[in-house]
Amino acid sequence: MKSGGNVIVKREVLVELGETLFAAYGLSSDDANTASRILVNSDARGVESHGFARLPVYLDRIENGGSSATAQPTIEREFGAIATVNGNNALGLITGTFAMKKAISLAQSFGIGAVSVKGSGHYGPAAEYALLGTAHRCITLSTTNVNTSMAPWGSITPLLGNNPIAIAAPTSHHPYVLDMALSTVARGKIRLAAARGDEIPIGWGLDAQGIPTTDAKAALEGLITPLGGPKGSGLAIAVDILCAVLSGSPTSPEVLSQAKLDRPQNVSHFFIAIHIPAFTEFDRFVSDLDAMLDRIRGSKQAANVNRIYAPGDIENEHELEANRSGIKLQVSTWAEIKKHTDRKGIPMPEAVILI
Amino acid sequence: MKSGGNVIVKREVLVELGETLFAAYGLSSDDANTASRILVNSDARGVESHGFARLPVYLDRIENGGSSATAQPTIEREFGAIATVNGNNALGLITGTFAMKKAISLAQSFGIGAVSVKGSGHYGPAAEYALLGTAHRCITLSTTNVNTSMAPWGSITPLLGNNPIAIAAPTSHHPYVLDMALSTVARGKIRLAAARGDEIPIGWGLDAQGIPTTDAKAALEGLITPLGGPKGSGLAIAVDILCAVLSGSPTSPEVLSQAKLDRPQNVSHFFIAIHIPAFTEFDRFVSDLDAMLDRIRGSKQAANVNRIYAPGDIENEHELEANRSGIKLQVSTWAEIKKHTDRKGIPMPEAVILI
Repeated sequence: MKSGGNVIVKREVLVELGETLFAAYGLSSDDANTASRILVNSDARGVESHGFARLPVYLDRIENGGSSATAQPTIEREFGAIATVNGNNALGLITGTFAMKKAISLAQSFGIGAVSVKGSGHYGPAAEYALLGTAHRCITLSTTNVNTSMAPWGSITPLLGNNPIAIAAPTSHHPYVLDMALSTVARGKIRLAAARGDEIPIGWGLDAQGIPTTDAKAALEGLITPLGGPKGSGLAIAVDILCAVLSGSPTSPEVLSQAKLDRPQNVSHFFIAIHIPAFTEFDRFVSDLDAMLDRIRGSKQAANVNRIYAPGDIENEHELEANRSGIKLQVSTWAEIKKHTDRKGIPMPEAVILI
Repeated sequence: MKSGGNVIVKREVLVELGETLFAAYGLSSDDANTASRILVNSDARGVESHGFARLPVYLDRIENGGSSATAQPTIEREFGAIATVNGNNALGLITGTFAMKKAISLAQSFGIGAVSVKGSGHYGPAAEYALLGTAHRCITLSTTNVNTSMAPWGSITPLLGNNPIAIAAPTSHHPYVLDMALSTVARGKIRLAAARGDEIPIGWGLDAQGIPTTDAKAALEGLITPLGGPKGSGLAIAVDILCAVLSGSPTSPEVLSQAKLDRPQNVSHFFIAIHIPAFTEFDRFVSDLDAMLDRIRGSKQAANVNRIYAPGDIENEHELEANRSGIKLQVSTWAEIKKHTDRKGIPMPEAVILI
């Protein structure tokens, strides 16, 4: 297998492979299905960074004791429209799903539901939890703290994670869904520019003294910036308040990277579901949101823009294509997966096309 | 009175003047007090753009029939932890206060409360509503749609407002509070650069073809940008979903500017209150948040930075200074106020220092 290329795998084949692997590492068949589907959904939607490429690290964490394959999240407190959940160090994929489903169920009873979560791990694609609500006629918010990568505005001490926020809402087609980290750009983009010897736009990164720089290498040795400066900095603090401070968990500086394989990460999350029918006529909501998004899609394009997308459109097109033609993974990801199937004596699927 | 300078007025004198004026234009004494306090609070906190400088336009709207002085917001629907409110075209200051108080009361009963509001007007400083919750041990979210000023990402059609979001949380001192519009910068900053003949940083504005420009004049004839491009664009859509689509109101393109004095604006809002004691021990929450913010304040400063502020610190210092020395207003604002007191035969306060 050449190292640079890609493989294409049918979606259902990939789900089954993930299930088999998670189960081989000790997850119940239900949990293995949940975890595998989240990763495959992310790949299908074109968000490779949070898809199957992450499967090895979830498995390695179980192998090394950092995450528990068998632990189940538990509800610690329930009051009116809210609940608090302890992940008990199960995979974030399992705990995030459990907690969002609880928020949706509370929203069905009370119009809105909120669930605060501690004792979790990296939950992967924030959007996948938000998207659990749209079939239940909910607007949803999914957010998590992560380990640090940014300094608060004015500082050069990395005390903030680029904590992602996802928001979703149902339409008559694919949902509106926004999934954004609170940094200006991902560190990976700066790494790419440095490798190519390109300059970066002012605003993407700071050098080690905290001065804005166009030198990609200086930014790599320095810091990525919060989205829009003080705004993204303030929002990253808000997410840590909702996730960590509200649940009694460590804030980002004490959250461990997923790569510390033998230690609990102590990630915390926060979920809100808003049950639209409690507020208004659902069909009216959907037709108004359809109209709003169609108007945006049909508005006048800026120079050099061929098409205007509403949040979620690009991911939806990726998914339609993945359902038709299969999911594309990097050969390096496939090789990493194979190490894990080999270890457990699991055959790799054959229906794979190398490109 | 020279036209360029400032006046300084004692805070309580300013509150009383605002009350007298709002009452003279037909508000009940309670509502006049509420409306005046919000504007004075904003000036005290150093947010002049949403303070007493706006008083004349609120009064002019009443005079010209665009807003109602006597209408009262009503609850149209109540279900579990949520309520929907119709502002009935009362001032946004009145309706926003009413709705946030309702959200707080729901949160006290259910752990979280949400209120969706239609039929409102410009509600001024988003932070003032969020701050109503911190004394009640709530984390709060206050957001509103506004008339359009930005194009969705990739478009040059102004379909989005720079919809502000405010989030507040209690500490043992002054609250954490973030209040941010969803544009990269306020249009006023670009206007200032154009007047000075300065260039603007790339990213602040687009020319009329939607191409990023450093030419302040070209940006003034073009568009301000959403915060961080697609992220701010997606968030502005989310706010319009929560405010307008959820409440059955017009979205930003149909919301009228406050300056259309004789027409209802059809602004909509959305408020969430989260009652901390439902989730966790309140004192622990406060000490953890204190520690988090103090750690940020005490972190290592970037080059050229003298001090690191947590969200709300600068406004708190303004307020302490305003309480000591009075509130500074522009002479032009003071002259506009005088036109309205003259019209109603109200004496202007004497305890004013010209500087």
